[in-house]
Amino acid sequence: MRMRRKKNLEQRLDDCNSILVSIDNEDKNFNTAIEEKQYLDYKEIFGNENPVQMEIGCGKGQFVYELAQREPDINFIAVEKSANVIVQACEKALELGLENVLFIKGSAEYLPKYIPDGTIERLYLNFSCPFPKKKYANHRLTSKRFLPIYEKMLVKGGEIHQKTDNMHFFEFSIEQLSDYGYTVKNISLDLHNSDFEGNIVTEYEKRFSDLGQPIYRLEAYLK
Amino acid sequence: MRMRRKKNLEQRLDDCNSILVSIDNEDKNFNTAIEEKQYLDYKEIFGNENPVQMEIGCGKGQFVYELAQREPDINFIAVEKSANVIVQACEKALELGLENVLFIKGSAEYLPKYIPDGTIERLYLNFSCPFPKKKYANHRLTSKRFLPIYEKMLVKGGEIHQKTDNMHFFEFSIEQLSDYGYTVKNISLDLHNSDFEGNIVTEYEKRFSDLGQPIYRLEAYLK
Repeated sequence: MRMRRKKNLEQRLDDCNSILVSIDNEDKNFNTAIEEKQYLDYKEIFGNENPVQMEIGCGKGQFVYELAQREPDINFIAVEKSANVIVQACEKALELGLENVLFIKGSAEYLPKYIPDGTIERLYLNFSCPFPKKKYANHRLTSKRFLPIYEKMLVKGGEIHQKTDNMHFFEFSIEQLSDYGYTVKNISLDLHNSDFEGNIVTEYEKRFSDLGQPIYRLEAYLK
Repeated sequence: MRMRRKKNLEQRLDDCNSILVSIDNEDKNFNTAIEEKQYLDYKEIFGNENPVQMEIGCGKGQFVYELAQREPDINFIAVEKSANVIVQACEKALELGLENVLFIKGSAEYLPKYIPDGTIERLYLNFSCPFPKKKYANHRLTSKRFLPIYEKMLVKGGEIHQKTDNMHFFEFSIEQLSDYGYTVKNISLDLHNSDFEGNIVTEYEKRFSDLGQPIYRLEAYLK
């Protein structure tokens, strides 16, 4: 059974190859600073030179495909580690006929090999895994391990937009961003009861909000 | 009756003059940048050269007199606008025989005339009035109107420690501090359920916490 499922998954991933790039890298000595660059050619991929925004940890893609429909003049790159999950996002994007989304299957640390420096206008981190245990703190997507990667990819003044339902992860995020030099703005400690407009509420977000948990949100940029 | 109460208050303030300085200034054109300095002589006041910390908005003084007893080798300056309120703080400090607290009756904007530059190790802002209406935002003690005053008074790397029960005031505070260049650290979005140790819980703080409202706390410093 296991083989069959895997085979099926590979077939499904193959069927999405018009909008899916895989950047998995098994080499533990991988170092983006010295690796030969294989920069994506946005014009070739999207057929235009529109601004590019990115979501890291897109899950099943609900946020990015809703945003991509709302913003047809922006191109989106949606990154997700899990093959099982990203395949569902890709299939939905194909079904919707979206032409402004590219999916990348892989880990955030490999992105600088593929993303030209200073080309991402905005980075979304939505409900990233909080890795509650301290010893896994450097797996959190707002840890200092990732902030230089984001700085490299973002345009000057480009923004990180984060949402989470995890209070301690949000505290950690503000601290890490602030310590790195980011200016934090438009903070909501209870997004669904704030005056923020245009929020895209994913199923995941709705589930936590329905339990009465506040949703936290921030924007951050380097001056 | 009104006269009698006022006379009584003045007498009570007079009785506290060994530990109370008044810096009220009625002049609306007051400008600390050009006013002649009347710097406090800490050595004369406290009889030693211990580090000095300050609380702005000390109310009836519960926080500062508890901290002053806990930290006898630190000198404290406690600032409060309201005469009716600060007189109670002074009377309690006299009753306790505290020798490491000086009270200043007056508004924060006049402080730079009296506080030598770069001499305050730490500034406490506890449950400051949140001024919820936007048009009074510049009255909030973490607004940009006050941040240069704090920078002037604080030693290099000196810290601001803020606590509040008001969510929007806390959001505002992080944003203003961050925009001014402060690094924000040790954030608690629910202080009483955090691992922060040594918190001094005032009556005011307890009242809000007992209602189930989270208490917010941060520390901030300029790198």
